[in-house]
Amino acid sequence: MGGFQQDEMTPEQIEHEVGLYGPFTEVVRELVDATIRTEVDDDEIRAVQAELEDIVARLRRSQLDGPYGVRFNATGHGRPWGNSVVGLRNAIAPPLAIERESTGRVRCEFHLGAAYEGPPSLVHGGVSALILDQMLGEAAGAGGRPGMTATLTLHYRRATPLGDLRAEAWIERTEGIKTWAHGRIEDAEGVTVEAEGLFILPRWARELAFPTGDAAETPPSYAE
Amino acid sequence: MGGFQQDEMTPEQIEHEVGLYGPFTEVVRELVDATIRTEVDDDEIRAVQAELEDIVARLRRSQLDGPYGVRFNATGHGRPWGNSVVGLRNAIAPPLAIERESTGRVRCEFHLGAAYEGPPSLVHGGVSALILDQMLGEAAGAGGRPGMTATLTLHYRRATPLGDLRAEAWIERTEGIKTWAHGRIEDAEGVTVEAEGLFILPRWARELAFPTGDAAETPPSYAE
Repeated sequence: MGGFQQDEMTPEQIEHEVGLYGPFTEVVRELVDATIRTEVDDDEIRAVQAELEDIVARLRRSQLDGPYGVRFNATGHGRPWGNSVVGLRNAIAPPLAIERESTGRVRCEFHLGAAYEGPPSLVHGGVSALILDQMLGEAAGAGGRPGMTATLTLHYRRATPLGDLRAEAWIERTEGIKTWAHGRIEDAEGVTVEAEGLFILPRWARELAFPTGDAAETPPSYAE
Repeated sequence: MGGFQQDEMTPEQIEHEVGLYGPFTEVVRELVDATIRTEVDDDEIRAVQAELEDIVARLRRSQLDGPYGVRFNATGHGRPWGNSVVGLRNAIAPPLAIERESTGRVRCEFHLGAAYEGPPSLVHGGVSALILDQMLGEAAGAGGRPGMTATLTLHYRRATPLGDLRAEAWIERTEGIKTWAHGRIEDAEGVTVEAEGLFILPRWARELAFPTGDAAETPPSYAE
């Protein structure tokens, strides 16, 4: 069952799982895309559906009771593998591979295909919001100030085309347990969407994130 | 290739496609969930991966060049089947089945499982934004004022748990080509996220949406 869980995974075990689940989830992403775009005949659709039902039953023979959660090993290496934006094992996630700088600046390049469509041939405005929420949160986290989104505002400057895109985000300012982050999505012609968000690490999340209760593991900037 | 396309689909043909692609996409959604949660052994993961690669190749033997787009039949029945939130053929979409009132009020009940996770056992803040962007846009459209999101602001009142949820949205006010919509997501205990958005139908989208150029088909409130 989900939770911020610490386990004993070694770097070698993590590398093994990345090599196993990464390509596996990637083909599920391909299937999501093909499901939208296929024009094969009805009999083939029905045949594939039956095969998929069998595959799902086999995968469910042994499975987690609930969502994946966020796991950490003893060295603090996090595995948010069920996350809707960056999750290695989540076929909904593009997934974003985000470069993080300790200054609280993050960036990534990514490709959005048919599954991320809103208006014809354009990225769904809510998908841009989904990606920017993650990016701004990652900026806060990269700067040592992880938090939950309190408010998020998106400014849609122009339509974002499906295809190759990039995004970046950074910490704009901080005040006590509050962190304001800004970010944007760009296509080849420049900025399409800008975002600003306020992130706060509430006590309950702080206790979940730092379950030892060891104050030394709580970022000093969040101490009450 | 995508676009606002009008076609000659009859109600019977649409009903047939709903019956074919609805259950097909539903099993792909199940697969996305099982991909995150499965604990079967490595050999089974590799075997399933190979089977899925074969299935994807078969589905891609005949497929659209690009995204699905948004299609309409002669009576104006819309099929946004590739849409990331409501798309019948999009396994990323929960999908939301939204009840629309002509007053511009919309509501829906839905279930979010493991694929929509951000913090452990909680809905990803960006997923709430994705859903609310669609809901507010649907409210504008239901009230006869379809538009593109110009700005969207989310207020996260408390964490949203994965599971059974409901959402509603409505038109708050209008001014020329601008429509302001508000909405919220609720769990059993009440509101978790609130949103307000500004929607505008730009000229290029108006021309895409009403390609005949017949002014009579353009909502009067959008005439320049």
